[in-house]
Amino acid sequence: MEAFWAYERALMTDDVAELDRLFAPGPATLRGDAEGLLVGHDAIAAFRAVRGGAPARRIVATHVRTIDDDHALVVAVTEPERGGRGQQTQLWVRGAAGWQVVAAHVSGPTPALDRRVWRVVGDPLVPATASGPLDGLRVAVKDLVAVAGHRIGAGNPAWLAGAGPEAAHAPVVAALLAAGADVAGIARTDELAWSLAGTNVHTGTPPNPRAPHRISGGSSSGPASAVSLGHADIGLATDTGGSIRVPAAYQGLAGHRPTHGAVSAQGVLPLAPSFDTVGWLTRDPGLLAAVGDVLLPADTADLAPEPDLVHDAGLTALAAPEVAQAVGSWAAARGVRRLDGPLGPVEEWRAAFSTLQGWEAVREHGEWAAAHAADLGPDVRARFERAARTTSAEADRARAVVASARALLREVLGDRVLVLPAAPTTAPRLGADLAPVREATLALTCVAGVAGLPAVTLPLTAADGLPCGVSLVGPAGSDRALLALATRLAATARTGT
Amino acid sequence: MEAFWAYERALMTDDVAELDRLFAPGPATLRGDAEGLLVGHDAIAAFRAVRGGAPARRIVATHVRTIDDDHALVVAVTEPERGGRGQQTQLWVRGAAGWQVVAAHVSGPTPALDRRVWRVVGDPLVPATASGPLDGLRVAVKDLVAVAGHRIGAGNPAWLAGAGPEAAHAPVVAALLAAGADVAGIARTDELAWSLAGTNVHTGTPPNPRAPHRISGGSSSGPASAVSLGHADIGLATDTGGSIRVPAAYQGLAGHRPTHGAVSAQGVLPLAPSFDTVGWLTRDPGLLAAVGDVLLPADTADLAPEPDLVHDAGLTALAAPEVAQAVGSWAAARGVRRLDGPLGPVEEWRAAFSTLQGWEAVREHGEWAAAHAADLGPDVRARFERAARTTSAEADRARAVVASARALLREVLGDRVLVLPAAPTTAPRLGADLAPVREATLALTCVAGVAGLPAVTLPLTAADGLPCGVSLVGPAGSDRALLALATRLAATARTGT
Repeated sequence: MEAFWAYERALMTDDVAELDRLFAPGPATLRGDAEGLLVGHDAIAAFRAVRGGAPARRIVATHVRTIDDDHALVVAVTEPERGGRGQQTQLWVRGAAGWQVVAAHVSGPTPALDRRVWRVVGDPLVPATASGPLDGLRVAVKDLVAVAGHRIGAGNPAWLAGAGPEAAHAPVVAALLAAGADVAGIARTDELAWSLAGTNVHTGTPPNPRAPHRISGGSSSGPASAVSLGHADIGLATDTGGSIRVPAAYQGLAGHRPTHGAVSAQGVLPLAPSFDTVGWLTRDPGLLAAVGDVLLPADTADLAPEPDLVHDAGLTALAAPEVAQAVGSWAAARGVRRLDGPLGPVEEWRAAFSTLQGWEAVREHGEWAAAHAADLGPDVRARFERAARTTSAEADRARAVVASARALLREVLGDRVLVLPAAPTTAPRLGADLAPVREATLALTCVAGVAGLPAVTLPLTAADGLPCGVSLVGPAGSDRALLALATRLAATARTGT
Repeated sequence: MEAFWAYERALMTDDVAELDRLFAPGPATLRGDAEGLLVGHDAIAAFRAVRGGAPARRIVATHVRTIDDDHALVVAVTEPERGGRGQQTQLWVRGAAGWQVVAAHVSGPTPALDRRVWRVVGDPLVPATASGPLDGLRVAVKDLVAVAGHRIGAGNPAWLAGAGPEAAHAPVVAALLAAGADVAGIARTDELAWSLAGTNVHTGTPPNPRAPHRISGGSSSGPASAVSLGHADIGLATDTGGSIRVPAAYQGLAGHRPTHGAVSAQGVLPLAPSFDTVGWLTRDPGLLAAVGDVLLPADTADLAPEPDLVHDAGLTALAAPEVAQAVGSWAAARGVRRLDGPLGPVEEWRAAFSTLQGWEAVREHGEWAAAHAADLGPDVRARFERAARTTSAEADRARAVVASARALLREVLGDRVLVLPAAPTTAPRLGADLAPVREATLALTCVAGVAGLPAVTLPLTAADGLPCGVSLVGPAGSDRALLALATRLAATARTGT
């Protein structure tokens, strides 16, 4: 079939105009591959424009099924030069513009591992050391956490190249292994965890299967995508300014950021110790609590059996309408009440959080970052450069703001649970400008950060079908009770909405 | 569309009869997935009968394109319970039997790694230690070869569980790393390398992309499939009785079994040291020689610039007609002459080879195998049990036969190159009875084995489109010259046939 071979030639020469022409116009045209289904000619054209060509390959078999004079299905087996085989299925339709594809389904050979998600992965990489409540579950360990015998890569090739193998597991890793879980592998992170996007310039953005062609969220991008893809059951991660909550929201996962200091950060590369926490992500809220049973100390604060759930109108207003709406209906269905009066000067807190985070990041890694500026992605390098100009007076002022915010928040909330959007938007598209999203996100996420409070994130679905998340911020030291509450509320959500 | 949902219900309940009914009868019906394209209702039904159900999932989106009253294309996005997303595209046709699928293309989420191919894999697992001629190439290391810091698993979970991390790389691994190659990962092997099939009962049979739904060949199954799939460029492997030559033939790869003793076996788990060799597999014959430049000593035997190429009618007759035909035309096009008189008592050699191989395998691993009989797959266990009954008198007799065969072969061949089928058949189907194939294979492969001679295998294609292989057996110590010859002959093949 002549049009089929014209298509193949256009594909091999990355003739985007010709490919666009050979795909039928209109919103019903389909193109699906491992990254997800694109619907509509515009979405397909946008994808082609940035792809930069398909891998060289040959056609080893074709099966043409002629339906009528104007319709034919073509199934082709492809053999890429780099090995493996693939298949493409195309429905061709003849119209005024000649033969065009109205639906294409493309499968290529899969790589040994998805390097956007994993740095190293095994079957398993490290087996459980004992039997326990997490028997048979697989853990994706963020590449900031020590796994004995392996290096910490911190999302940056130069860091990895300078790292030696870790002598021992981080206590959190050892605890999971002792509870029956296997370490599946070491998953990607944004560089030194200093991002909320997951758009690592060295290894690419991990896929977000629930929101195809959109970002994964970060910095715990690899563990989140590994869990979302079903490569692992538990993502062992960190959250300084939202690095668990944001990818959970973008990918429709459950996540827990513990009370600051409640879970050992030993063997975990720090970013900003005043805010750093070690937490986890799962597909299922029930498993989130089961992991908590393994990793958390006994609660030091109570939560009432039916705690007061509150929300703050100012915080909710920081979210995009579709997210505010999803969080709002979820909250309304669970009797969440509005806080009297505003929570506090959130924008001032956000600024102080960012200043102090940067100050501490420079204390931790500034020397390395300055020596390796050329090895860092532009966003993270810019963060280090800006933070390096912070004066100690500015840091002191930020520290004072954070301390008073912490006191205020703990007093205002008391033993109540604050309900807020986990992130202000659904996952932005790949290639979108992320700077404004980052600012708005930190305004939401810094609340738990400055207060050192635990935050459970639960998955919701926005009206457009994309995932978003709701966070529950509870009293310091109430982690287990908060996880139990979240499990109950999530179950209500499943049956009630 | 009602038929679509009936199909989905049948799939989720593994109602094979109903699924068979919903797929149109006849040889033109198609079903493709990551394992390859099945053509014809019979092939599809055979696949379903052994699959044992599809993973639980839900349909998250459907797009129906009605072509006419009797034709519709249905594209569905699937979300398996275990995470990730997939797509299926089906062309439905309405005929006398109602709506039926005539073509289906199914994509599921890919696992973190293909555990049939890999035990552990990284990006890379171990980086090159220097720059060199193999810069940027990726090595799949058979799970018998020491990689520092990692255990040797030998294709058996009990062996792996009892193994400690290796203190140092095997010299072959260190040499590849020093030549610029990365170790991509540790790839599967048949248990203790004692098989030619690749059908490891613990981790499954690696896929054979050039021959879908057929076995990979073994025992170097993982490295071969890793190279075939494009997961690696070089498969570092071993060959005692055909473990490189057979998977090369089945998967259309190039492979080199070196002169016995020419490449260090230090740090490599032995099977039968009288026959064990360490060699490699590649997609490209040119790369096969480039790896030889790194791993081989200087040649100790010459090969004439245009050496005599000979074949033995008795050996060629051991192959199935389609393989004998492919090897025959290849040989005829290259002026390969028939040997005067029979090469020797090949069946007696094969028996002696098997006896001595078993005797040595029992010396190496018999104690472990006896203690772990329940942990071994039935075929390999039976081989150990049978070999354990060999008397030392029988072993002595076998040793004498091997010694005289070695002397005879080296004398008869002299400085000539013997051309023979690498394996007697194309890759058998998954589930086929492999015992007769194994016997016939060893009769061909034992020639290089008993003589300790180098054997280069080149990929051919049989008349039915499946891969097969031709082996070139040269004088002892002529490895580099033999690889150069093979590269020339392969290039001739590419342009000449």
